[in-house]
Amino acid sequence: MVSSTESTSAKANPASWPTAEAIDEAAGRIAGRAVVTPVLEWALLNERVGARVLIKPEIFQRTGSFKFRGAYNRVSQIPKADRPKGVVAFSSGNHAQGVAAAAQLLGIAATIVMPADAPRIKLENTRNFGARIITYDRAHDDREAVAAKVISETGATLVRPFDDPEIIAGQGTVGRELAAQAAELGARLDAVLVPCGGGGLMAGCALAIKAASPTTRLYAVEPAGFDETARSLDSGERQANAPGAKTFCDALTSPMPGELTFAINKRLVERGFSVSDREVAEAMAFAFNRLKLVIEPGGAVALAAILAGKLDIKGGCVGVVCSGGNVDAELFARTLSEAA
Amino acid sequence: MVSSTESTSAKANPASWPTAEAIDEAAGRIAGRAVVTPVLEWALLNERVGARVLIKPEIFQRTGSFKFRGAYNRVSQIPKADRPKGVVAFSSGNHAQGVAAAAQLLGIAATIVMPADAPRIKLENTRNFGARIITYDRAHDDREAVAAKVISETGATLVRPFDDPEIIAGQGTVGRELAAQAAELGARLDAVLVPCGGGGLMAGCALAIKAASPTTRLYAVEPAGFDETARSLDSGERQANAPGAKTFCDALTSPMPGELTFAINKRLVERGFSVSDREVAEAMAFAFNRLKLVIEPGGAVALAAILAGKLDIKGGCVGVVCSGGNVDAELFARTLSEAA
Repeated sequence: MVSSTESTSAKANPASWPTAEAIDEAAGRIAGRAVVTPVLEWALLNERVGARVLIKPEIFQRTGSFKFRGAYNRVSQIPKADRPKGVVAFSSGNHAQGVAAAAQLLGIAATIVMPADAPRIKLENTRNFGARIITYDRAHDDREAVAAKVISETGATLVRPFDDPEIIAGQGTVGRELAAQAAELGARLDAVLVPCGGGGLMAGCALAIKAASPTTRLYAVEPAGFDETARSLDSGERQANAPGAKTFCDALTSPMPGELTFAINKRLVERGFSVSDREVAEAMAFAFNRLKLVIEPGGAVALAAILAGKLDIKGGCVGVVCSGGNVDAELFARTLSEAA
Repeated sequence: MVSSTESTSAKANPASWPTAEAIDEAAGRIAGRAVVTPVLEWALLNERVGARVLIKPEIFQRTGSFKFRGAYNRVSQIPKADRPKGVVAFSSGNHAQGVAAAAQLLGIAATIVMPADAPRIKLENTRNFGARIITYDRAHDDREAVAAKVISETGATLVRPFDDPEIIAGQGTVGRELAAQAAELGARLDAVLVPCGGGGLMAGCALAIKAASPTTRLYAVEPAGFDETARSLDSGERQANAPGAKTFCDALTSPMPGELTFAINKRLVERGFSVSDREVAEAMAFAFNRLKLVIEPGGAVALAAILAGKLDIKGGCVGVVCSGGNVDAELFARTLSEAA
């Protein structure tokens, strides 16, 4: 019940993808609930990179990450008859908060399956949004099986973290806003870098930005060891990550690209970049010291790629999505201290 | 040479104050150099306060605080003949960076007199903007005398930290933007809270906001022990702080309100609030955890006042200026840990 029943080949057909109109509709649904995050620019960042850098800080989004957008777009479309049965989701923490907050606003009960070692701030916030939390052991338990059991018992609707057209359309509103805001600033986006886990934000942003600005090049950024999308784009087929890899980017540890997200990203994304934990830590410290932004590890990978010079963008204009800011104070302090 | 030659009574005459047109002109001078900082809003902050809260994050300003606005407005008006002689300023750190950055952009040499125990980030940034730094001992040296010596030797122009009409007009662009941005959001500002040291930001914001929105009430916020403006407003006369007070709000430790700033604030500001270091630390932790903003102690006092319930604003709309974000990582980490 948890895994898809559609075939990969059907998903490769653009007719099955969310359209620009679906992203417009998502923007309408989340209006007044989600934050239209600003685009921010710093002279010192532009000078450092040698290009115009437009930061899209989804850290200011309701729940502290972009995930609320897709979750609200999906949950708000659950038919009235199914709402009393609730929703269920599995997530390392940001999708958890997004679904919990969306369900709370819509008066729907939420059950969230989360790893026991998720950041404290993510567990606490999810609970504060009124969700019931079931924790599991990342090493031994199958989170999809835990979610499937809840569904079989309650009839709850599963809200997938990324491989769902309405989730992708919701996340696409990030790219839709960024394209419009860049145009308003008179900036022509040469490239946009997007943090990539399962690929929902990447696919949604790619669809929205290519619709508004077809010549803009899109890039997925992942933590080293979890660069499944980069390797899948290289090979043309979905690749899994080798087991045993470690990263402190807890939000970006998906084992394999989604079927639908990869079908979209394969067509629209140039390539992937991977960044080391050290490069991410330095980006977080730069954001603290220079930009005065609190960015969580997984939310800082695209900024890390730009600061580490992964993309040749001299003299151009690049959009950088900073996708989340939910990091515990202890880890944040340790990261700043180690990056110094 | 450092202290004013005008009389206090002359400064009490509104004809000598910066006009709304002077603030418009300042906005024109700093355009393209200073950042038009956004106004940010969070559902959870509104719910917590029980009012609509519009945050004006000057932490995103060039040099990490509002001080660049006034400094650039002042330094850019130095006559061509005087520019080769340089500028001099004394400052605990944010005015230092503002003057150094403005002078660098205008190709003018800057000498900055700073306390030896200023935050490292402020000393380093000031040096990185190309300024010569002369440090002094806060307990034993007279910083105005040190600056006067530089002036007598070089003929440099003194850039006062707050008690100067062009500095006040520059800082007033914060209030000018906030009033326009609130109007654009359809919000009627019932009150605006502003961090207050010597009173330049407060006076400038009061002039700009009263011009755009005469019914908006203005409030100055200061650290406990350095509430000279609050007590001066109460008594109607400028009051000095008792010696020996301590606060970690290093940006807000001026000994007495300025003559011109107090003349303006006395007429336009309702009253002052003071906040304890503990309340400031809690506001910094709230900003980290919930707003994902890095705010320095002195920059967080107005947010602290709102979170601590100092102002009865239920059901209304309040603007809160977060004036700076230049805080060392060690102090930031310690503050988060102690506030937890």
